[in-house]
Amino acid sequence: MSSLQDLCFAIAQAQAAYARCLDDDRLEEWPDFFADDCLYRVTSAQNMRDGYEASLIFLNSKGMVRDRVSALRTANIYERQAYRHVLGQPSILSVAGDMVTSEVSFMVARIMRDGTTDLFATGRYLDTWRRAGDGLALTTRVVVCDSSRIDTLLALPL
Amino acid sequence: MSSLQDLCFAIAQAQAAYARCLDDDRLEEWPDFFADDCLYRVTSAQNMRDGYEASLIFLNSKGMVRDRVSALRTANIYERQAYRHVLGQPSILSVAGDMVTSEVSFMVARIMRDGTTDLFATGRYLDTWRRAGDGLALTTRVVVCDSSRIDTLLALPL
Amino acid sequence: MSSLQDLCFAIAQAQAAYARCLDDDRLEEWPDFFADDCLYRVTSAQNMRDGYEASLIFLNSKGMVRDRVSALRTANIYERQAYRHVLGQPSILSVAGDMVTSEVSFMVARIMRDGTTDLFATGRYLDTWRRAGDGLALTTRVVVCDSSRIDTLLALPL
Repeated sequence: MSSLQDLCFAIAQAQAAYARCLDDDRLEEWPDFFADDCLYRVTSAQNMRDGYEASLIFLNSKGMVRDRVSALRTANIYERQAYRHVLGQPSILSVAGDMVTSEVSFMVARIMRDGTTDLFATGRYLDTWRRAGDGLALTTRVVVCDSSRIDTLLALPL
Repeated sequence: MSSLQDLCFAIAQAQAAYARCLDDDRLEEWPDFFADDCLYRVTSAQNMRDGYEASLIFLNSKGMVRDRVSALRTANIYERQAYRHVLGQPSILSVAGDMVTSEVSFMVARIMRDGTTDLFATGRYLDTWRRAGDGLALTTRVVVCDSSRIDTLLALPL
Repeated sequence: MSSLQDLCFAIAQAQAAYARCLDDDRLEEWPDFFADDCLYRVTSAQNMRDGYEASLIFLNSKGMVRDRVSALRTANIYERQAYRHVLGQPSILSVAGDMVTSEVSFMVARIMRDGTTDLFATGRYLDTWRRAGDGLALTTRVVVCDSSRIDTLLALPL
């Protein structure tokens, strides 16, 4: 990855693969996008503005990400639904050695079992990636939802 | 097209041109994105999961794609409306000789004559492209809609 | 910027930065995306089809763009809200010397203070960019909204 353009392409590809994994309901593969020592948080723009550390979801290791999948599969309390992510072009915020931070906007539609579709969530991913060989692993993904009303509905990962 | 990155760029450009063609209501140019021996299908995620071959729309030659345009222009039974596609970053699934398969997520908004806008369809395009010279032609486009409720509304191509 | 691909990347990056500026409510930085002798217009697809020059917003210098920001900050009559833009892949329409024209599709969600989220606007940006050094400045941005009902709601820039 010799240039900013190459790096941006690699990140966009990783983002697309991540989104497809969730949208295809292949949750068991979701932890593979993260490094072992990762942090995955879901929070709101209001919390970010107020400087609150509060998170709707807070998982600080790949093991916890895996546990989340198990819990979702076992409990299965949520009504059957699917997501569809559409992401914008990633912006690279910094590059330092093997670490890259980026930001990207997302919209997520939710499709209920009866076919009803609504705009479920919008926001941005604030990511830190570690480059390893040809690949990229997420060391941090902070999902900043624009709306503060997301919490009561959140079931599948974003 | 020497690299995966170049190929992905070419596909993204072709996807954007395809979407603009439909969103600009230039339906007569729509068949030009397809190879002569093409297949265009619209189906649902549920049908795909169940392994059903059933399609909401099934056109298996460029001639049939053209006929569809004529039918839409002549019949004109649908209320006047416009679409707006926004697509994600394409993922390349395979490359074999001149044939490339890719997948991309889409959201389509529908704008009615009175200005009402809603999220009309979400899903993914499963595409096979044939490379010919500098260009790409669709030999197969399977439009997999996330919702099964799309059929009663479908009028313009996706 | 030696190739179409490089140019498209640069435009996509500039578009993403523009969208983040608005979505982050950093309106004061918004004028920086424009050249001094710029034109910023918001109109509807219907107006474009009819050949009307009428615009919902018409700002024909960077100074007027700045004044718009001041007016929005001072008047502040609109209910607090945020936007989330998601853009497609830009299509380059022409390159002539240092001037480049492009088109890109957008969807904008609006998030009200109480968290309500709706699909606020869809359409396309018709842009002319001037290349200067490593950067790109907008000399013209025509925001063509698909719906004609946008006017009564328009507050923040698109």
